[in-house]
Amino acid sequence: MMESILNRTLAAIVPVDQVLEAKAQARLDRLTKPLGSLGRLEEFARRLVAITENSSPVLDKKVIFTFAGDHGVADEGVSLFPKEVTRQMVMNFLAGGAGINVLARHANAEVVVVDIGVDYDFNGLAGLLDKKVVRGTKNIVRGPALTRKEAVRCIKVGIELANEYGAKGCTMFGTGEMGIGNTTPASAIAAVLTGRPVSEVTGRGTGINNAAWENKVRVIEIAIEKNGPVRNDPLGVLAKIGGAEIGGIAGLCLGAAARRIPVVVDGFISTAGALIAHRLAPWVSDYLFAAHNSVEIGHGHMLASLGLKPILDLDLRLGEGTGAALAMLMIEAGLKIYKEMATFDEAKVSKA
Amino acid sequence: MMESILNRTLAAIVPVDQVLEAKAQARLDRLTKPLGSLGRLEEFARRLVAITENSSPVLDKKVIFTFAGDHGVADEGVSLFPKEVTRQMVMNFLAGGAGINVLARHANAEVVVVDIGVDYDFNGLAGLLDKKVVRGTKNIVRGPALTRKEAVRCIKVGIELANEYGAKGCTMFGTGEMGIGNTTPASAIAAVLTGRPVSEVTGRGTGINNAAWENKVRVIEIAIEKNGPVRNDPLGVLAKIGGAEIGGIAGLCLGAAARRIPVVVDGFISTAGALIAHRLAPWVSDYLFAAHNSVEIGHGHMLASLGLKPILDLDLRLGEGTGAALAMLMIEAGLKIYKEMATFDEAKVSKA
Repeated sequence: MMESILNRTLAAIVPVDQVLEAKAQARLDRLTKPLGSLGRLEEFARRLVAITENSSPVLDKKVIFTFAGDHGVADEGVSLFPKEVTRQMVMNFLAGGAGINVLARHANAEVVVVDIGVDYDFNGLAGLLDKKVVRGTKNIVRGPALTRKEAVRCIKVGIELANEYGAKGCTMFGTGEMGIGNTTPASAIAAVLTGRPVSEVTGRGTGINNAAWENKVRVIEIAIEKNGPVRNDPLGVLAKIGGAEIGGIAGLCLGAAARRIPVVVDGFISTAGALIAHRLAPWVSDYLFAAHNSVEIGHGHMLASLGLKPILDLDLRLGEGTGAALAMLMIEAGLKIYKEMATFDEAKVSKA
Repeated sequence: MMESILNRTLAAIVPVDQVLEAKAQARLDRLTKPLGSLGRLEEFARRLVAITENSSPVLDKKVIFTFAGDHGVADEGVSLFPKEVTRQMVMNFLAGGAGINVLARHANAEVVVVDIGVDYDFNGLAGLLDKKVVRGTKNIVRGPALTRKEAVRCIKVGIELANEYGAKGCTMFGTGEMGIGNTTPASAIAAVLTGRPVSEVTGRGTGINNAAWENKVRVIEIAIEKNGPVRNDPLGVLAKIGGAEIGGIAGLCLGAAARRIPVVVDGFISTAGALIAHRLAPWVSDYLFAAHNSVEIGHGHMLASLGLKPILDLDLRLGEGTGAALAMLMIEAGLKIYKEMATFDEAKVSKA
């Protein structure tokens, strides 16, 4: 029964209508500029039209979901920061002092902080959305991160958030996350789902040195060996070597696509979530925008596998949804071009 | 006497203080994020501190100057669009319907449209800044674009605008331009000042086909041969193969640098103006931000020569200042990070 919302959601994800994209481009081609001269801004506008099936989309209510979760594998020395930073940063998000708060304000987006797997009892703290599935994942060098049921529950959290905020009239979602150690499961997922060697998809996370990087690669290789995830079972991959926040992000992508709401996928960890979603429902990519090209080396391989081209390339590696907030400003710019520019006829400008 | 304001301005352009950059980075390093994890946003913030010599810079009044001018070389079939589009687009700018109007509104920047060389009498049209130096440049396949005096006057227009708007309290400038045919002088300048063959710095402008591109390359080669610009005489380069709006942009960069006001340089044509400025006063680069990487193939060579790395790469090739408007949003994001994020101590977050 728990899988029924997931199955219904997967069944509702269909490719976007290319004819709508072409119609939007036809309008863009009547605007007072050389054909195609606004490049990717034009792409953003026509994709929004096709995603929303609305010839005049509105992006007034944007929400970034920052999913927080802990990771047992943090015990293996894969991060520079101690594990308690996850909960400390949750408090920072709620106080408005983190990077995502600053950049979401800049982009006029709301931040919703979701406890999906923090190893701490927040006791119903105001402002924090309590959707806790686990108190941290298990250490993946010893066994699976989550049970399969827990993995499905994490995805369900994301789907339900998409439904709830979609029903409230939100018109664009961004993904984000916080979880000390979470580049480790994200790299593990990247390795399994893209088929690349672990060393080619593992980066330095918060900034570890060479020795710590070699240890991180070894930890991921052991975790994959131990748990035996297989690429054609994405739920199993999420359970065996994933993380709660990665599952939440996967679910948000799926739920949004099923409701025709565009999702701006942040960086490396968010893209691991999007990749799980993609393996469950390949058309989900039609509804996703890749915010930026992360410093993490595995990111490009995952984006290529999703068929997405990043919007920004600003050497970011913070996560939280920070890249998504910035990219929203560019997507919105494209929409405004589409909606607000004068046509050649209106402006009485001669055509080529 | 006319050159005296230019000489005073050049003399006032000094390198920014690296110590101020380091101090700004020290604050960035205390914020609740892994060291350096906001990548180029951190670069933007520390550069703004050093440029303005203000430990808490303000970017509330941003102005984009869109310089308009015509080009005699348009008679040689180098553009898809007829020459009257320059004045028609000026009217479109004043009516608020062009790409730059939409994107400047999005970035909360003012657009100032400057007639520096349009071949049309606007008769004191309201909203248009009349700084006309010439009614179009001369056709560069027959002789110089401008006299040397006219070239200096164009630069002076830019310097005076920087002074006037700086005195009004504007804290960031963007450059932009409109001029049918103006990728031709911009490519000519790129060839002479970077030393590259014309074919390596000449693109398709508004979208010309192969035959028209070959003609454009030939036209530029003839113009260079005919007028004999030499790279160590940047004023001569501007006069011989340049354009009025390119001179205005060069002057704006110089005037802004002399007043410690950051300038966001738009795309290909604007960068040609910045390159002229750089050859007159190399430290001007310290005050410039390169908005984006244009589709025009010569752009990267000019940016490398200026030592600037573009902020965005969105396949834009419209000009007007559109890329500058978008890039302002990213630079401002960096400043907000610097000013608004909590430190580790303030947020009680454990350090690495």
